[in-house]
Amino acid sequence: MNDTICAIATAPGGALGIIRISGAQSLEILSHIFSKNLTQAKPNTIHYGHIVEYVERVAVAQQQTTIIDEALVSVFRAPHSYTGEDSVEISCHGSRYILNKVLELLIANGCRMAEPGEYTMRAYLNGKMDLSQAEAVADLIAATNKATHQTALSQLRGGISTELSRLREQLLRLTSLLELELDFSDHEDLEFADRSELIELAKEIDIHVSRLAKSFETGQAIKQGIPVAIVGKTNVGKSTLLNRLLKDDRAIVSDIHGTTRDTIEDTIDLQGITFRFIATAGIRQTSDQVDQIGIERTFAAIEKARIVLWLIDQMPTEAEIADMAERSKGRTLVVVCNKSDLESHQNLQISIPDFQFVRISAKTGIGISQLEEVIYQAADIPALNESDTIVTNARHYDALVRAHESLQRVLNGMTSQLSGDLLAEDLRLALDQLAEITGTQITPNEVLGNIFKNFCVGK
Amino acid sequence: MNDTICAIATAPGGALGIIRISGAQSLEILSHIFSKNLTQAKPNTIHYGHIVEYVERVAVAQQQTTIIDEALVSVFRAPHSYTGEDSVEISCHGSRYILNKVLELLIANGCRMAEPGEYTMRAYLNGKMDLSQAEAVADLIAATNKATHQTALSQLRGGISTELSRLREQLLRLTSLLELELDFSDHEDLEFADRSELIELAKEIDIHVSRLAKSFETGQAIKQGIPVAIVGKTNVGKSTLLNRLLKDDRAIVSDIHGTTRDTIEDTIDLQGITFRFIATAGIRQTSDQVDQIGIERTFAAIEKARIVLWLIDQMPTEAEIADMAERSKGRTLVVVCNKSDLESHQNLQISIPDFQFVRISAKTGIGISQLEEVIYQAADIPALNESDTIVTNARHYDALVRAHESLQRVLNGMTSQLSGDLLAEDLRLALDQLAEITGTQITPNEVLGNIFKNFCVGK
Repeated sequence: MNDTICAIATAPGGALGIIRISGAQSLEILSHIFSKNLTQAKPNTIHYGHIVEYVERVAVAQQQTTIIDEALVSVFRAPHSYTGEDSVEISCHGSRYILNKVLELLIANGCRMAEPGEYTMRAYLNGKMDLSQAEAVADLIAATNKATHQTALSQLRGGISTELSRLREQLLRLTSLLELELDFSDHEDLEFADRSELIELAKEIDIHVSRLAKSFETGQAIKQGIPVAIVGKTNVGKSTLLNRLLKDDRAIVSDIHGTTRDTIEDTIDLQGITFRFIATAGIRQTSDQVDQIGIERTFAAIEKARIVLWLIDQMPTEAEIADMAERSKGRTLVVVCNKSDLESHQNLQISIPDFQFVRISAKTGIGISQLEEVIYQAADIPALNESDTIVTNARHYDALVRAHESLQRVLNGMTSQLSGDLLAEDLRLALDQLAEITGTQITPNEVLGNIFKNFCVGK
Repeated sequence: MNDTICAIATAPGGALGIIRISGAQSLEILSHIFSKNLTQAKPNTIHYGHIVEYVERVAVAQQQTTIIDEALVSVFRAPHSYTGEDSVEISCHGSRYILNKVLELLIANGCRMAEPGEYTMRAYLNGKMDLSQAEAVADLIAATNKATHQTALSQLRGGISTELSRLREQLLRLTSLLELELDFSDHEDLEFADRSELIELAKEIDIHVSRLAKSFETGQAIKQGIPVAIVGKTNVGKSTLLNRLLKDDRAIVSDIHGTTRDTIEDTIDLQGITFRFIATAGIRQTSDQVDQIGIERTFAAIEKARIVLWLIDQMPTEAEIADMAERSKGRTLVVVCNKSDLESHQNLQISIPDFQFVRISAKTGIGISQLEEVIYQAADIPALNESDTIVTNARHYDALVRAHESLQRVLNGMTSQLSGDLLAEDLRLALDQLAEITGTQITPNEVLGNIFKNFCVGK
């Protein structure tokens, strides 16, 4: 923690590159590699100069400098910086050679290479943010669409922290009421809170904790994309439909000039939510004979899906409908009638109760936007506001589930007239479990290390 | 030129991302997407705030904001900025979603997406740098080793510009002396500069111009790497040697923690110079019979090489030596005796006059560092100082060659007693040709467009 650390904070290959330095020695170390001495510089100021390397000429007892780059240096002072420490950001040309050279010079002059996430870890340790906010930083950087961005930003801005601190306050009130009862239980003349009132309070807290834990499902769907299976007989147009859905999306993505997106196969963004198509390549054979492997793969895809698009181009038999209904239980099944551009298919009347139905032509694009709307609705993601708290982190989910279990024990104990001191133990457990999420109480080093190791270096 | 432009200046995927805005409306446009109004902010200051999107709610005639990210905004004022215009740099989290969203908002509020190199083009047009310096910016960003970095930085810092302005002054002096002679040629009583003196001056200028043009060869070698061919009989250990040379280099590259290098096959860096191995995969067959295609490929490789490593493990015949000497004419031939770890090879005495000779074991690594030193020396790259001017740009080379040709015509004309007015025309041509390099005189728009189109966006 006392080291001054440095790292390249930008990806290689851009016009500009940023190197971050943080720690008490930041400005002192900088003075050894920069053409200006900024140890007295005002906070939040920018300075133009040269990054220089001093090459000692022993023979003539004289120092010669080599200029490495022209650079802009931003100066931040503790505690008003990201980490809460004295910090410097060097903005230089984005050549890998230059960035590595600057790092080398910083290390030669006393900096240490930052560990992944160490800047954010320091921000947490210096009280600039709590643990859940720190974790949100990594999610924010990784965000690829509106929904993941919004949940990460809400968490970073303290969404979950505020909600948890409210719950902890209620829990503390419950605990103190119980302890009061405990302390004065032999004073028969004193009146205490009604047990039934306490039970109501505990229930209310538990409802909130459960709701938060339950939001993890939505959080996961947002973070990892909602799995969609496209199933149907051979030659019904599954590949054409997939390509149509993917192509429409790609066209939107490439709208912004100069940006390229790493091609992630088979996902589309609909209204800010990612939908992930489960590969069913195995059933795309051209032979009429649907073999056993094909059928099994289809069923495996349905198993993993949350939404099943059943593509048809003729009326299924009663048996087929019953079979599909059985297979896709617990999922949203959308019957998609393809080839509506063909004369022969236009009058095809298909009505299957309980299933959603969309008529499309994957080839011409008819009905695709309607299908997209149906897919989006089928995901059943609640419209997200900035104020909504969605748990996206497995560590948080785990703590919430354990807090819920503790609260269930408290509730059971209360209804079975368990004594206050036994109840208080479970209540404190629930308190600790919620505190784990924000790291409000001291968290063991192992937990910290675990959280920050998945960060990228420079953050 | 009057537009306010914006672009992402960092590569996607880092912890931080930078968006640059430049133009008279920079701070005005920023005020529409930033939580603070910085239109009155002091130059070279940094401001913390939120990037916000205003979502108009028509129904209640009220604006609602969505926060996109927390950001640091750096404010620069004309003319003290990179472009010479009012400029803003937004430093936010490096998520592609956020960076694209900020760009979108800027464009919606009146910015235009910057063309590749447009920031540097504006810097040139605003007199912040000349053309050769502007071109050096792109080279600097692309620099991957010490030598390319140093030549680009020297050019950016005005190395070539200074040298050219000195040459232009001399040329102007020569021109004015000739014109003086011309104006007063009918005054027989006036004495003029001796023609032989003028010839000396022209020769001196031409020597400098030729030297600069000639440095392009070194410049190209530095920029593109020096081509090296490894040739020799089957099973002599060519692949092992190549792997050994490449592996040693890779180990050095991976020294700096947290940096990854795009794997460029078959190049090594020796003392800051890149050496590029010419693929000779075709002759790596395992059969003893060296077929005609293999031999032809070897000769083609030698043809393209500047250094030829002739790998042997037994004494070549006189005919083979004579053949290799003939084939590698104009190149540096290094005879590399492999397998010196084997008992049977240790006493092998090979002495070939005129060729360099190194004894190695590609398998164990014996002699490899000595071989690397020989390769580096064979490249014959002059030790580069910051003050050396090396031409690395084909456009500059072309202009220098044409200036040299013009000067040759001047010299020929002088010795053949051509009249001053005919000489002056070629002199002015030479002047224009040198001026093209730095863009000191107005360069047609097509030339400008040509120069900046290969820049990356954001620079």
